[in-house]
Amino acid sequence: MGFWKSFFGSAETASIQTRLEADGVPVVSDRADTSTRIFFSTERDIDLYELEELCDAVGWSRRPMRKVRKAIQHSFLVVSMWQQRGVTRRLIGFARATSDHAFNATIWDVVVHPEFQTKGLGKALMRYTIKKLRNEDISNITLFADPHVVNFYRRMGFMPDPEGIKGMFWYPD
Amino acid sequence: MGFWKSFFGSAETASIQTRLEADGVPVVSDRADTSTRIFFSTERDIDLYELEELCDAVGWSRRPMRKVRKAIQHSFLVVSMWQQRGVTRRLIGFARATSDHAFNATIWDVVVHPEFQTKGLGKALMRYTIKKLRNEDISNITLFADPHVVNFYRRMGFMPDPEGIKGMFWYPD
Repeated sequence: MGFWKSFFGSAETASIQTRLEADGVPVVSDRADTSTRIFFSTERDIDLYELEELCDAVGWSRRPMRKVRKAIQHSFLVVSMWQQRGVTRRLIGFARATSDHAFNATIWDVVVHPEFQTKGLGKALMRYTIKKLRNEDISNITLFADPHVVNFYRRMGFMPDPEGIKGMFWYPD
Repeated sequence: MGFWKSFFGSAETASIQTRLEADGVPVVSDRADTSTRIFFSTERDIDLYELEELCDAVGWSRRPMRKVRKAIQHSFLVVSMWQQRGVTRRLIGFARATSDHAFNATIWDVVVHPEFQTKGLGKALMRYTIKKLRNEDISNITLFADPHVVNFYRRMGFMPDPEGIKGMFWYPD
């Protein structure tokens, strides 16, 4: 990993590091400060105000916190990405997936804080998310991509409209 | 409803009839035999062999029953469509949806038995499914449509690639 240094704490994050290193994905963004690390978590007890701040930073419309809480509670997988400097943690990325726990999962709300974009962290977040879903024996991983991120997801192994299958959204008449 | 006659039993199905009639959807397929009715259910205790038979009839690949059971258990909504003649019930349609219980639902495994297709029953099944999701305050209803059913779903109010949003499927490298 060259200059890139990574320090993981828990067994969970340590195992992530192993996988990410195996995949050759840079994980830590601060070369100068070796006490800074980036880590992933699947814990759901996320401060919803912090999540709202992250979503604000990328310009998403605000959503009722009550519904966000419910959505997180009923997602199959919730992934958060954190920067830790000393004892301070900052939420810098997020993704979640709905699923039938058997065949299909659909990834929603993928976000990386603008200050942390173009560092390979979106890629790392997606790789971690995919790995977690594959570990649960989910074979069909889907998402709905905005036009400007279609190529990002394509590079991650997602194919648009395979065999002519169309993603469709219902709108009331 | 003219010749079309419909007899509903439970309060659940009775309320469906009201809605379907309001939507002007024909519900019963047998004009001669007034003891035949079509009804919908959201009960999950479906005979998996009967469901497999239905999926066989439309040529779907078989899936492990253990996983089908798990998928039904963890779907947000499970809809089955039945023909009842006297005391005999026959499973003639099916659909289910995954969801975060708050914002998004994705509809999977929509099937109508070939003998009952082109009678408006696929439309009735979808209307019932959408209504159930809307009743749960789900605003974003999505699906992935095979090419030959894109127009069917379009007529139901689903839009392909709205604002350039692409449905994408992950494939391993």
